Amino acid sequence: MATEILAESSLTIGTHTLSSRLIVGTGKYANYELMGEALQRSGTDCITVAVRRERLIDAAGNNLLEFIDTQRYTLLPNTAGCFSAEDAVRVARLGREILVGIENPGADWVKLEVLSDTKTLLPDPIATLEATEKLVADGFQVLCYSTDDPVVARRLKEAGATSVMPAGSPIGSGQGVLNPNNIRICLEYLKEGDPDYPVIVDAGVGTASDVTIAMELGVDGVLLNTGIAHAKDPLKMADAMRHATEAGRLAYLSGRIPRKLYATASSPDEGVITSKPR
Amino acid sequence: MATEILAESSLTIGTHTLSSRLIVGTGKYANYELMGEALQRSGTDCITVAVRRERLIDAAGNNLLEFIDTQRYTLLPNTAGCFSAEDAVRVARLGREILVGIENPGADWVKLEVLSDTKTLLPDPIATLEATEKLVADGFQVLCYSTDDPVVARRLKEAGATSVMPAGSPIGSGQGVLNPNNIRICLEYLKEGDPDYPVIVDAGVGTASDVTIAMELGVDGVLLNTGIAHAKDPLKMADAMRHATEAGRLAYLSGRIPRKLYATASSPDEGVITSKPR
Amino acid sequence: MATEILAESSLTIGTHTLSSRLIVGTGKYANYELMGEALQRSGTDCITVAVRRERLIDAAGNNLLEFIDTQRYTLLPNTAGCFSAEDAVRVARLGREILVGIENPGADWVKLEVLSDTKTLLPDPIATLEATEKLVADGFQVLCYSTDDPVVARRLKEAGATSVMPAGSPIGSGQGVLNPNNIRICLEYLKEGDPDYPVIVDAGVGTASDVTIAMELGVDGVLLNTGIAHAKDPLKMADAMRHATEAGRLAYLSGRIPRKLYATASSPDEGVITSKPR
Amino acid sequence: MATEILAESSLTIGTHTLSSRLIVGTGKYANYELMGEALQRSGTDCITVAVRRERLIDAAGNNLLEFIDTQRYTLLPNTAGCFSAEDAVRVARLGREILVGIENPGADWVKLEVLSDTKTLLPDPIATLEATEKLVADGFQVLCYSTDDPVVARRLKEAGATSVMPAGSPIGSGQGVLNPNNIRICLEYLKEGDPDYPVIVDAGVGTASDVTIAMELGVDGVLLNTGIAHAKDPLKMADAMRHATEAGRLAYLSGRIPRKLYATASSPDEGVITSKPR
Repeated sequence: MATEILAESSLTIGTHTLSSRLIVGTGKYANYELMGEALQRSGTDCITVAVRRERLIDAAGNNLLEFIDTQRYTLLPNTAGCFSAEDAVRVARLGREILVGIENPGADWVKLEVLSDTKTLLPDPIATLEATEKLVADGFQVLCYSTDDPVVARRLKEAGATSVMPAGSPIGSGQGVLNPNNIRICLEYLKEGDPDYPVIVDAGVGTASDVTIAMELGVDGVLLNTGIAHAKDPLKMADAMRHATEAGRLAYLSGRIPRKLYATASSPDEGVITSKPR
Repeated sequence: MATEILAESSLTIGTHTLSSRLIVGTGKYANYELMGEALQRSGTDCITVAVRRERLIDAAGNNLLEFIDTQRYTLLPNTAGCFSAEDAVRVARLGREILVGIENPGADWVKLEVLSDTKTLLPDPIATLEATEKLVADGFQVLCYSTDDPVVARRLKEAGATSVMPAGSPIGSGQGVLNPNNIRICLEYLKEGDPDYPVIVDAGVGTASDVTIAMELGVDGVLLNTGIAHAKDPLKMADAMRHATEAGRLAYLSGRIPRKLYATASSPDEGVITSKPR
Repeated sequence: MATEILAESSLTIGTHTLSSRLIVGTGKYANYELMGEALQRSGTDCITVAVRRERLIDAAGNNLLEFIDTQRYTLLPNTAGCFSAEDAVRVARLGREILVGIENPGADWVKLEVLSDTKTLLPDPIATLEATEKLVADGFQVLCYSTDDPVVARRLKEAGATSVMPAGSPIGSGQGVLNPNNIRICLEYLKEGDPDYPVIVDAGVGTASDVTIAMELGVDGVLLNTGIAHAKDPLKMADAMRHATEAGRLAYLSGRIPRKLYATASSPDEGVITSKPR
Repeated sequence: MATEILAESSLTIGTHTLSSRLIVGTGKYANYELMGEALQRSGTDCITVAVRRERLIDAAGNNLLEFIDTQRYTLLPNTAGCFSAEDAVRVARLGREILVGIENPGADWVKLEVLSDTKTLLPDPIATLEATEKLVADGFQVLCYSTDDPVVARRLKEAGATSVMPAGSPIGSGQGVLNPNNIRICLEYLKEGDPDYPVIVDAGVGTASDVTIAMELGVDGVLLNTGIAHAKDPLKMADAMRHATEAGRLAYLSGRIPRKLYATASSPDEGVITSKPR
């Protein structure tokens, strides 16, 4: 049984195969020790790291990478804090250099974030598309943080993105998947004739059920950070997110019962009163 | 870590302490072998069994109880199929006799269901209250299946119910918790000055996220049957429900981040445009 | 056209036929002048009045009834503030006396509220049922404020209630209809073989769309008070509620288009990716 | 009173001031007579017309424009059926010629739709942006049909759009506003320092409450077509939509009461049980 579940849990993104469908960020923790323990509890073997210097080195001069077991985790460098395609491309290359230097397998990929402004941290679809084209040409496997707009998602795939990662809701908002219909159409567009193309919900997760709901829609994985890092008890929440990912994946594969008004109704609407006044 | 999680997972209802917060029914499975495997996968150590003869013995003359490891599971006899207080009291007593006969610890409790009609299977609050009073007087620990009406829930507790089990949605409807606000008020009423009083969402669960959402509201456990038994793959769904219960409990205990319009907003409504046309 | 709309707008409850499907309360206004103007704007011709003395007479000794054009409005006396069947019956009789005294046609009916506690103001279903039986025996046309529990709603009708008025959400909570499924089942139970039986959503309305949504479910009318009285601009909100009632009724009668994932999908789920990973 | 409501109802978009906040399409009606009557009932004075020849001329050779009182309505030509910026620009110019020819004031504006594919009819944000720039340079007042992505919406405004019209949900899907949060952020972006900038929800409306909810969010108007044209009774639904627009606008201006768990709670969460098991 354990083996079977592991198989169901594994997630292939480009040349990388991960044993968990949950990818976890490393920002916003009270300290690096807590971060390390939370990462472990989450069950992930892939963590994303902001490459910009001001995010890698904390106030005390500690380098984040010294607190991460880089033998254990595949690192996914990200371009958090970039607000233009140029800047994101530059930071992605810097990330590659750093990961080559520490011989981490994550040197060949990047989580691309190109944001619109510091207030909402919403992605800029046009700059993201531009940066994707450049990074693909430069040999990167590009995982694109995106809005949930299916048309933009399809464009990013056409531009060569290895994975598209639509936001459930704004970064750090804790609102979960606000528009399941857009995620459904993203899946339809991105997996048409290509069922293994990885689609990952990135951003907006507030609690465990947000992860479960996302996975039940049929996405291949979830990426989150604040939901764990800023919970009152990040370690327990990391445990919760691990279970929530498994729960959602298994439920998606299980084929749920239909929703009905009540069990003997043959559809959600059956039995709804339709008589109209004379 | 494992021990800690186990402690968080245990659920005390009256004199019974269960190692899982998930209670699973035994009806509607394609066959008893599948049922047995699904029960195991769900991680539960408490299963509820309909006592009425037509539900205990299948078409081939097999007795459900012969397919259950009664050393492993605490049985929770239920009065499914009863539509009056009298009938429910009679069936509860019959269940007690049967469980005394097989020396199962579940002989001293009962899940009381008194239903209103065969179409919706909604509970009858008045007959439930009447049956509760009789069964409490008769020495039973009574776990009452109820609507989510907080006033009825409080009455049932006042009548001596060991646990109140509000429905998330109609039995077999697969709609999850339709009215989280009523569940919140039930918790407020039932746990006021009595934080360990067990409140269990019973009925309506369709998929894993329904369980996680219920647990995140702060209920102590979830009871379900159709969601697993009628899934296309009941075994995978049983796994899913086990994880979903853990996920929801841990998330509840973790203290989730607040919901906001976006991360730099200080409240869900901050930044919402309030200017009005002149 | 105007005539046609009026016909659609009329609502018959027992022996009373009202020209509007909106019934409005008289409590909580900043002053009686504002109340009078808001009532007019709402388009109602039926207003409900709390009979208890402390609610009829304000701090300055003014009697509410002196500020209402009792020639224009049918008054619906209510038992707000009653927490037992006995008290509610007493207050209902008092209301009848007062309305007989002023020769208002509302003398023969009552809106029955029997509440459980002062904190939530949720209705007490058992005391409501008891009071209904007594008031029906006493010749009243009883309009019962109730939870949205369909089984209780059916019991109240069986006890002789002229109308059942399920709450959308708790009094003054402004949450609208929290559980449309329960309202749907209430309609199914109450209108089975009796399509003209009046079902009115009472309580919980916060804004115009709450009214429209309730009416689109097929209820016959909406009763509200706080949503107008405590809005920043009660007069504009009264206008809004009038339009919202018309909008919801007309939309219900119009036969709306189905919901789909997108227009060329033949069902809400069509096109949803169902491929599962190997 | 009537005057005041009219003032609140008027909507200024560029150089056009409309007396209704509802704009209605002309497609998909069973016949042109029904269309004409529905337009009248809707209360609108602005209707949008697809310019492409195959949409202007029906199978019998009738020209849509002959069935519209072009003295009464301001026409808003639209580029429905265009899947590239070039095509949309060409069609917009054709529309201008036609409207100049019939001396309709709508000759100087256009509703720009550039769609991604025939299956979902979702807008193509990049082609829409490109076409906007060209049409603005060509002197058009451009009303841009868009996704609800706030970043794209802001770009369109920066490109000179006279109004941005985010979709509530896909064209013809009848799902209403799927992501109110995105609409809120659109309003925040587009009205910052410019409170009169017109934001109009276009597409996805299924029934009256969808309109009311959109207007309550603070948008300036709603544009719809299928919701009326494909209702079982388009005339009644046109009436419903007229009331729904008024209801939503008035409710937005009124300042609604807050949502609470129950009335005596000071916040939606107050009273929510927070005790945690020991």
